[in-house]
Amino acid sequence: MTEFELIQRYFAAQSAPRADVALGVGDDTAVLRPPPGEELAVTTDTLIEGRHFPRDTAPGDVGWKALAVNLSDLAAMGAQPRWFVLALTLEPSRAHDAWLAAFAEGLARLAYETGVALVGGDTTRGALSITITALGTLPPGAALRRSGARVGDVVCVTGTLGDAALALRSASATAGDEYLRARLNRPAPRIEAGLALRGLANAAIDLSDGLAGDLRHILQASGVGAEIEIDTLPMSAAFARLHDPAERLRLQACGGDDYELCLCIPPDRLTQARTRLGALPLTEIGRIRGEPGLVWRDARGKPLNLDLHGYRHFGD
Amino acid sequence: MTEFELIQRYFAAQSAPRADVALGVGDDTAVLRPPPGEELAVTTDTLIEGRHFPRDTAPGDVGWKALAVNLSDLAAMGAQPRWFVLALTLEPSRAHDAWLAAFAEGLARLAYETGVALVGGDTTRGALSITITALGTLPPGAALRRSGARVGDVVCVTGTLGDAALALRSASATAGDEYLRARLNRPAPRIEAGLALRGLANAAIDLSDGLAGDLRHILQASGVGAEIEIDTLPMSAAFARLHDPAERLRLQACGGDDYELCLCIPPDRLTQARTRLGALPLTEIGRIRGEPGLVWRDARGKPLNLDLHGYRHFGD
Repeated sequence: MTEFELIQRYFAAQSAPRADVALGVGDDTAVLRPPPGEELAVTTDTLIEGRHFPRDTAPGDVGWKALAVNLSDLAAMGAQPRWFVLALTLEPSRAHDAWLAAFAEGLARLAYETGVALVGGDTTRGALSITITALGTLPPGAALRRSGARVGDVVCVTGTLGDAALALRSASATAGDEYLRARLNRPAPRIEAGLALRGLANAAIDLSDGLAGDLRHILQASGVGAEIEIDTLPMSAAFARLHDPAERLRLQACGGDDYELCLCIPPDRLTQARTRLGALPLTEIGRIRGEPGLVWRDARGKPLNLDLHGYRHFGD
Repeated sequence: MTEFELIQRYFAAQSAPRADVALGVGDDTAVLRPPPGEELAVTTDTLIEGRHFPRDTAPGDVGWKALAVNLSDLAAMGAQPRWFVLALTLEPSRAHDAWLAAFAEGLARLAYETGVALVGGDTTRGALSITITALGTLPPGAALRRSGARVGDVVCVTGTLGDAALALRSASATAGDEYLRARLNRPAPRIEAGLALRGLANAAIDLSDGLAGDLRHILQASGVGAEIEIDTLPMSAAFARLHDPAERLRLQACGGDDYELCLCIPPDRLTQARTRLGALPLTEIGRIRGEPGLVWRDARGKPLNLDLHGYRHFGD
């Protein structure tokens, strides 16, 4: 039995068969049935041990997160996730039942919660690395692109920012740590939010590398600028226990791994957007403007002389 | 500019825009338009330096082969390849213009020849590893599955076997080496053959790990056995210069990296299959039978006491 067959075995126990899978794992390719008339959204992301997650991360968290970061990309397009394939590279020291079972459990749990099916994969030997390609569908023209932001749009984010970055920074065990670690290790892709904001948001991106870097992608693709009020950046109760304002801002603007959505929404659609999101907070953090560039302002509206950037992975 | 943007730049020069790509590289996901009513075929394969190709392989060959092995899987399903995404992991020592340009050139050349479009990707830092996920489409029910082989079917292979394995073995520079090296480094996925044999072949698989191993996948999936006449295994002129019969058989049956198709075809469809394939040879090498297992026979029909297996990658 190969590692992949092992994973598939653990996986099968937790996943429901999907009617849109004509042929799943086990042949040269999967065969899938996209809903008639819909477009296909495809994304691929690699997580590498020691680079995208710490070496002591639990295998179940690795499995969860490898899928979550891909589903987050689908969410940012407003796509309905359906299927994924898994390319897993691991050392022989990990290719045993206990590690694989735990990895598969984390992966399968998120797949189960979001209703996506594992339909194919490959396992190879090498340093631990997981590449998932996730597929979803959406009605023609419904995609929430990066390029649609318009002057006057409100810049919003879902949830709270900085939790994962703080968890990564702090080794100390304090109250709230468990919450922060869950935000780092088991991020919840904002799939429902992406679906709910189809037709309302002019532009969207998911926050993987930090607000400062990711928002710039929207600004560049849309040919606009933005001003952000730093005191409006939403924070969790656990995060708020961090008192240093400069460090707060650094983690919230540059920390990465939030997997919240950043959206540009016309002001007259904001109420409807909030209604559709229900319990998930949508926080107004700034405005799109015509002048290019990203300006950070303090509570009194004073521009701050800050050169904030998102986390720069090597090459992504 | 990230490595991925660099690759994309080299790539854009050689690729034609496709009408079925609503949104390519550069957003959270690609957005694609599958042809109405068709099913979607999806496959993913990882190549790792030193494991799936020698360390001194030219970067252009690496790029070509990483795509070729995935298109070969689509070919074995009878799918029409359309799109692919690329996850590239590489060391900083490779993340320079010359290496990336050469890599992208090899990748783009095969993409251009086969008409597939790069629609997304990710680059990360680590030991050289390439994961491509390729997508194609096919009419409902047209997939050439592994599970369809029937007793009495003729077992056939396209092209010739053993060339790549011989190239990998021999470091000596002899006549014919260039041909053999091209077979190893720039395999031609049998896309047209897969398309041509829709509706004719009962089962198909692509030969990546060697005939002995890959044919067993068909036999297991179909619940049948087969007998193969070893003297019928097709060989190229360059391969035929190898005189040791045992070594020939080992390379042809267990060598791997052929990327030819192995097909099970009812005898009364064989002429039509050959007509459709045109110049590509289709060689009859054996028969499907009811008794399970794989039997190898010599030219006089005598069963050989051989325990041949395909190349076992770690975990695939």
